[in-house]
Amino acid sequence: MKRTIGDFLLDRLSQIGIKDILGVPGDYNLQFLIQTERRNDIKFVGTRNELNGAYAADGYARLNGISALLTTYGVGDLSAINGIAGAYAEYVPIVCITGAPPLNSMYRRRSLHHTTAEGNFEDIMSCYRPFTVAQARITPQNAVEEIDRVLRACVRKKRPVYLQIPSDITFFEIDVYNEKLSLRQQTSDLQQLNAVVESIEEKLAKAENPSALLGMALDRFGLRDLSQSMIENLQIPFATLSAAQCVLDGDHPQWIGGYSGRSSSDKVKAAIEQSDCLFGLNVKFTDSNSSYFTQHVPENMINIRPFRTIIGHEVYEGVSAIELLDRLSKITPPKKYKNWQSNPPKVKDAWKPVTGEKLIQNRFWQRVESFIKPHDVVVTEAGTSMRGVKILDMPSGITIISQPLWLSIGYSLPALFGSLMAKPNRRQVIFIGDGSFQLTAQEVSSFFEHDLKPIIFLINNRGYTIERAIMGFHSKYNDIPNWNYRQLFDAFSDGKEFFSRQVNTEEEFENALNDADKVADKQLCLIEVMFDPLDIPKAVQSSANMVAAFNYGPRGLKELDKNIDD
Amino acid sequence: MKRTIGDFLLDRLSQIGIKDILGVPGDYNLQFLIQTERRNDIKFVGTRNELNGAYAADGYARLNGISALLTTYGVGDLSAINGIAGAYAEYVPIVCITGAPPLNSMYRRRSLHHTTAEGNFEDIMSCYRPFTVAQARITPQNAVEEIDRVLRACVRKKRPVYLQIPSDITFFEIDVYNEKLSLRQQTSDLQQLNAVVESIEEKLAKAENPSALLGMALDRFGLRDLSQSMIENLQIPFATLSAAQCVLDGDHPQWIGGYSGRSSSDKVKAAIEQSDCLFGLNVKFTDSNSSYFTQHVPENMINIRPFRTIIGHEVYEGVSAIELLDRLSKITPPKKYKNWQSNPPKVKDAWKPVTGEKLIQNRFWQRVESFIKPHDVVVTEAGTSMRGVKILDMPSGITIISQPLWLSIGYSLPALFGSLMAKPNRRQVIFIGDGSFQLTAQEVSSFFEHDLKPIIFLINNRGYTIERAIMGFHSKYNDIPNWNYRQLFDAFSDGKEFFSRQVNTEEEFENALNDADKVADKQLCLIEVMFDPLDIPKAVQSSANMVAAFNYGPRGLKELDKNIDD
Repeated sequence: MKRTIGDFLLDRLSQIGIKDILGVPGDYNLQFLIQTERRNDIKFVGTRNELNGAYAADGYARLNGISALLTTYGVGDLSAINGIAGAYAEYVPIVCITGAPPLNSMYRRRSLHHTTAEGNFEDIMSCYRPFTVAQARITPQNAVEEIDRVLRACVRKKRPVYLQIPSDITFFEIDVYNEKLSLRQQTSDLQQLNAVVESIEEKLAKAENPSALLGMALDRFGLRDLSQSMIENLQIPFATLSAAQCVLDGDHPQWIGGYSGRSSSDKVKAAIEQSDCLFGLNVKFTDSNSSYFTQHVPENMINIRPFRTIIGHEVYEGVSAIELLDRLSKITPPKKYKNWQSNPPKVKDAWKPVTGEKLIQNRFWQRVESFIKPHDVVVTEAGTSMRGVKILDMPSGITIISQPLWLSIGYSLPALFGSLMAKPNRRQVIFIGDGSFQLTAQEVSSFFEHDLKPIIFLINNRGYTIERAIMGFHSKYNDIPNWNYRQLFDAFSDGKEFFSRQVNTEEEFENALNDADKVADKQLCLIEVMFDPLDIPKAVQSSANMVAAFNYGPRGLKELDKNIDD
Repeated sequence: MKRTIGDFLLDRLSQIGIKDILGVPGDYNLQFLIQTERRNDIKFVGTRNELNGAYAADGYARLNGISALLTTYGVGDLSAINGIAGAYAEYVPIVCITGAPPLNSMYRRRSLHHTTAEGNFEDIMSCYRPFTVAQARITPQNAVEEIDRVLRACVRKKRPVYLQIPSDITFFEIDVYNEKLSLRQQTSDLQQLNAVVESIEEKLAKAENPSALLGMALDRFGLRDLSQSMIENLQIPFATLSAAQCVLDGDHPQWIGGYSGRSSSDKVKAAIEQSDCLFGLNVKFTDSNSSYFTQHVPENMINIRPFRTIIGHEVYEGVSAIELLDRLSKITPPKKYKNWQSNPPKVKDAWKPVTGEKLIQNRFWQRVESFIKPHDVVVTEAGTSMRGVKILDMPSGITIISQPLWLSIGYSLPALFGSLMAKPNRRQVIFIGDGSFQLTAQEVSSFFEHDLKPIIFLINNRGYTIERAIMGFHSKYNDIPNWNYRQLFDAFSDGKEFFSRQVNTEEEFENALNDADKVADKQLCLIEVMFDPLDIPKAVQSSANMVAAFNYGPRGLKELDKNIDD
């Protein structure tokens, strides 16, 4: 069968579940866009710039399973790359497609626009190589095999891939075959799998305090439900690293809390650090999820990675986590483990606004807790927002979208655009500080363009408060210009109505939440919350102190003190 | 003498003429920012994001000679890289400084935030390598030599360089010496220089039609005045490639016009292509400056590059263009060349608005010509703006800022912020389309923050008109959301007054220009010019056709026609 290269790629994207291609047009990709425009199964959705496009693709993939980003060669690729590197770090599968110059002009090393005009057509590819798991420059000869190879890597490894499509060949017809793209996952080597199960069963039989610690990207690897089945089958307590918050229900009776090294609660610390049979589910410790490497997990932790299980010093290659967790969900637990208690249901006093009281961060987050509804998507930004969300008690069915490892400021707003495009019918709530908001603010216009209705908590504290906590309490470099955000949204709205409120006091906040609740299904809601730049919750300051201690060392801290005394 | 690493670097930056460090704070660079804050000779200027920061540094360097950009590791570096690659392509010297993680944590390959947590601390450096001419990771041991080596490369090669400063060592005291950074340029090998001069004198003696063609980055390499002296000494006509527009006065009597291959005027084509002694001044042909490689320059062109002269097939290495041009400015011309005429002074009918007439692009640019004043800085963006400015008759002393090779959309607005910071007292005028404006719009707030007063022509044609001309005349992918730009500026203004006008007709335009002229020294001026999305000047369409022919080939054009017929 004959098919054009462009349509063959679009067929494949459609088959792996992509309905929208995010990105920015440019002269090298226009022909591919013409091909996209002619289809009904997949469409192009423009973003306001390429970095925003990459962030949006990241958010889209986190809810849809996979996404695609289209840029133009050089200028577009390099503008987007920070978002792609973040997706690589956090295991988010994005198919990056760039419209490249005509094939022969690359072979002939012509001095073209969007290049350095030195005949180097490897430089852009070399930038993408560290942050993607497969790359290809498509030709009519290799298109069928290379497109499939690269897409398969994206689906399997849950990380970005990179395709260069020369601008002159997208309408060329190539021979394609009838088979759909095979996404079969390799199953385990049976001996290896049996050996792991056996070893685990032995450990379980001897154990008094088994527990589990949930790590990275469990939803993307299709391990969420299986992890839950295993934990429920074994009736063991589990804790979560920051990337796993709400991967299982936040009100799950076996969830005992977040684990983050020395910052963890005593109960969680005991359950994880003194466990005699700790299951790690794709656990990877980093500075930011371990309070700077203060984790103390048992040496013989069973760390179940997507295709490898590590038990202490033994590495079992070729073991599919899907099959292993399935087996562990079905074994008969050797006993009932009694050494732990589920968290008692939290009884909290109802939050009541104190008349005339200025709203502060601590009180804000207390009240937010009851505003979040089951099955909300909660998007959070690096800074005080992420730290605020981290400590919320969450209802069931929440999905959290954030970048706990890459921590690129400005990420969350375009990511929210992507996640809304993927699931426009879920209620989606974002918490973002003004410092971060300003980096990618123009993507607000995409919410209006596509009639999306997020609830936006814009934390206005006049700058980078998290950095004030780290270093430069009163430093001018942590100030940012003050914008009129309500007016900004208006400028982006193209006349569409939206709800907005600026709140300073507890009463204003309470009213804003109640009023927003009434219209949130019909309108975008903006709630601008005014805090003092130095309103830094204690937990935030204490984690900022850890950052400063690590980053600047003892000499740095001395300087820091001087600075504060000034 | 002992000096902290941070202060030593700041000393050096100050010595090479940098007064402002542009960029974005992040936890790995805060300690260096504290050091910056304590100085009087140099200050930090925050930009709204890192890509904008890189563009701003580019604009700053084009007027100041050199600039500096500060980012934080990983997220900041990769966000900025497209702007740095553009500066590399266009020979703009920027010192990129990144606050990197603590030195020992990189050697120990710790899993840190802002990294992929795989222990790879070479990936970011490897991305910067193709787009910078020197790189270093600073340590207490190498700081003195490496900082000087890298800065010297930046100054000499007029291209970006990259310094990683680990966050924990900026307060360490190192041994520094009294010498200032030596920026001595190598002088020529005298035999080589003499050989070139002799060869040129021989050619000139035989020539009937000598002429000159001005290329890239002459101002950055300090060759502007010397080029002018040479051309005036020899009394020969000169033409300019796009990057050299207005490098010498736009009304210089020896300037005969722009050269761009087959798109050139007959007069310019003859003077360049039939010259029997053509001087190329740092000439490099690219697709976009040669109407897709249709230049026909004499084989024996004398191409004078900064430290190498090429005459036909002979390459003379080690010849300093500064010395060579100086010599050529002082030789006695062998004769008076008569075969050319300077352009007659253009007598144009005064532009008069036609009552009730809708303003169109062609008429707009005609009127703009008389609005530009001597010594203005004119900033232009890729798209119809750049093509509009290209054909303007300019007065003397104009500096044009644009990216004729890298052509990254969104560049010009932050570049204007940088150029205004460098020279706030020159009148600066920008022409930018809405499609490009949206990519980097937040930098408008920096104009207000620093009380800068550009005159902004915002061409509102509801999308990417240049791309409509290339492919997708009516395609939705070339549409963009419509913003209320006046309101947007207001939201960014922090209450400061500015002049704004939206113009649809010729009369409104005329009035807006006259009114803006009266207040432009006191206020920022925004003139939003409304054009039909399909108002494409003939010259723009014809160059767009060349782009399409090159990018998509014959097969592509067939599809394009079908599309237009639809």
